[in-house]
Amino acid sequence: MIVLQAEQWSRIGGALFLAAGASESNAARVTKALIDSSLTGHDSHGVIRFVQYTRAIEAGQLDPSAQPEVIKETTCTSLVDCKWTFGQVGAEICIKKAMSQAKETGIAISGLIHAHHIGRVGEYTEMAHEAGLIGIVLVGGFRSAGGANSGVAPFGGTRPVIGTNPISIGLPANALPPVMMDFATSAVAGGKISLCRANGAPLPEGCILDKDGKPTTNAEDFYNGGILLPVGGHKGYGLAVAIELLTQALTGSDQATGNEALGGSYRRTGSTYIAIDPGVFRPAADYASAADATLRRIKDVPPAIGFEEVLIPGEPERRCRARRSVEGISLPDSSWESLQALATKYLIDIASVVA
Amino acid sequence: MIVLQAEQWSRIGGALFLAAGASESNAARVTKALIDSSLTGHDSHGVIRFVQYTRAIEAGQLDPSAQPEVIKETTCTSLVDCKWTFGQVGAEICIKKAMSQAKETGIAISGLIHAHHIGRVGEYTEMAHEAGLIGIVLVGGFRSAGGANSGVAPFGGTRPVIGTNPISIGLPANALPPVMMDFATSAVAGGKISLCRANGAPLPEGCILDKDGKPTTNAEDFYNGGILLPVGGHKGYGLAVAIELLTQALTGSDQATGNEALGGSYRRTGSTYIAIDPGVFRPAADYASAADATLRRIKDVPPAIGFEEVLIPGEPERRCRARRSVEGISLPDSSWESLQALATKYLIDIASVVA
Repeated sequence: MIVLQAEQWSRIGGALFLAAGASESNAARVTKALIDSSLTGHDSHGVIRFVQYTRAIEAGQLDPSAQPEVIKETTCTSLVDCKWTFGQVGAEICIKKAMSQAKETGIAISGLIHAHHIGRVGEYTEMAHEAGLIGIVLVGGFRSAGGANSGVAPFGGTRPVIGTNPISIGLPANALPPVMMDFATSAVAGGKISLCRANGAPLPEGCILDKDGKPTTNAEDFYNGGILLPVGGHKGYGLAVAIELLTQALTGSDQATGNEALGGSYRRTGSTYIAIDPGVFRPAADYASAADATLRRIKDVPPAIGFEEVLIPGEPERRCRARRSVEGISLPDSSWESLQALATKYLIDIASVVA
Repeated sequence: MIVLQAEQWSRIGGALFLAAGASESNAARVTKALIDSSLTGHDSHGVIRFVQYTRAIEAGQLDPSAQPEVIKETTCTSLVDCKWTFGQVGAEICIKKAMSQAKETGIAISGLIHAHHIGRVGEYTEMAHEAGLIGIVLVGGFRSAGGANSGVAPFGGTRPVIGTNPISIGLPANALPPVMMDFATSAVAGGKISLCRANGAPLPEGCILDKDGKPTTNAEDFYNGGILLPVGGHKGYGLAVAIELLTQALTGSDQATGNEALGGSYRRTGSTYIAIDPGVFRPAADYASAADATLRRIKDVPPAIGFEEVLIPGEPERRCRARRSVEGISLPDSSWESLQALATKYLIDIASVVA
């Protein structure tokens, strides 16, 4: 396992994406996003994606130098065409457009189409609460050709036909820290399954089905054609279906017309961004005081067995970011070797980049 | 157990609420809401509430003849003061205001304060999808004086400090039936616990804590000071906190100033209504076709063991409504006796009312 400081990872990512053809601004933007995902503990969306994104560029699925464009706009709505570049570039445009509109109108919605992976969804709702606004971000859009183990079965069903459809909501407070919740609507993430598999530990009940559609707690069954289940049975299923329609069907990302040569041939993900002004119904300061009172009440709850304290949604991410900003970000050896090999291919001398 | 047709229940409810002082329009509106909840299978929000609401009127917590008022309005926002009458009357004003505004602006938000119980949340998102719009309704606002067993513990905590904070989303389709999801963010509803208790069956793991904050599957522990847990651990918890702030803190329902004599002394629930035009980003007909394609893909999934088919969220309610519209709505004997006693008090001859 290699450990480097965020700033060192940043130089590696920047050099690699530039060498692979990214514009300077796109390379800087996506590198910043991936490093912040690693800092906040979301390793699956972190520096491990340097290699994945570069390979997507090489495969012609991602245009690293395109510039997203607002293709439709009213006073409280906007639609952004990401032009098949890094989703993070388009997603930032969407949330910022919704935020600036919501300041004027109280609420606004933005949609993103033709986007490669937008990364950690919580990044955009953090932008909202940092600016004193409420942000809601939804991502969905299953595609059957999306590869093995990529989908979630409906409640009572045995085939994956929905995405892991994440939702994130960020809300500002006043003296108390802001709220940022960010979760996939599947019962469990792929990372947790591989951890159980590595440790030979059983999964909690209700997380996966085996290839025959039977409930199982054996992590190994997942890699033999198993299927993810929605969180909370019919509840997570209902939310996942709603997100599927609120993103893919609403934005039009099921139609990737005109760009089949790029990601359109394999990617149909849509994402939807809603911003709300906390002062929409009452003075924003009164909202913030009420938020503080609620969060204080939650923080004061005595912890359950196995917990040291009750955490506000978003606190785990902030604590991890503070810790890893000092301790650095690690990458497993196998991923580091892939990254080194890719860097060599692009004539990047990693040793001198990180020095 | 008594079984009566919806139309008979309707006459009982109407007569009782009128006799208890409700205006004709309020009595008709709330009766219709409660009967439809029973028809759709949500018995806890159904005709069983005839008695509960009448007692709230008698206790001075509910003004049965007040008329809610829009107290703030812009092009895509509105705030409604329910004046402590039946929440169903104010909630309908909110969703319809948001719907009519969203048709013009693409998205709109409405808030409801000073409301008694708004009933089944899905009723309002069904109004949205029936009009070809997308509706999102959130309810929250914990109050510590709310009575035993009324709250949910935060993830990792041992005291109830959040409401069961339901969310409902309704979305239209085209040839396929619409989607309507409606769930509480607690792992389990009170009704399910009392059923397990009656049958001596264990609860699933992760639903409740006992009075000492220890996990238990014994339903009896819930009635001895036990506490509800959020659905899906940190996921349901995150959603519940977000809903708490998006309703109570956002609308201002934590402040019940000016009406302490009525519900203000004990109720701090807020509810938030968002409507979205499915044609906001693309032609509405294209949205509807895409929704159909997604729902068809879900319906075609082979059922898991113990299921006959995969259901779209909202299908269980529609099927139950069709069945109970023929078979009638039942009420346990003990509830029926309370209702008869209350009717007698108001000089209502139930036999002749239902004849």
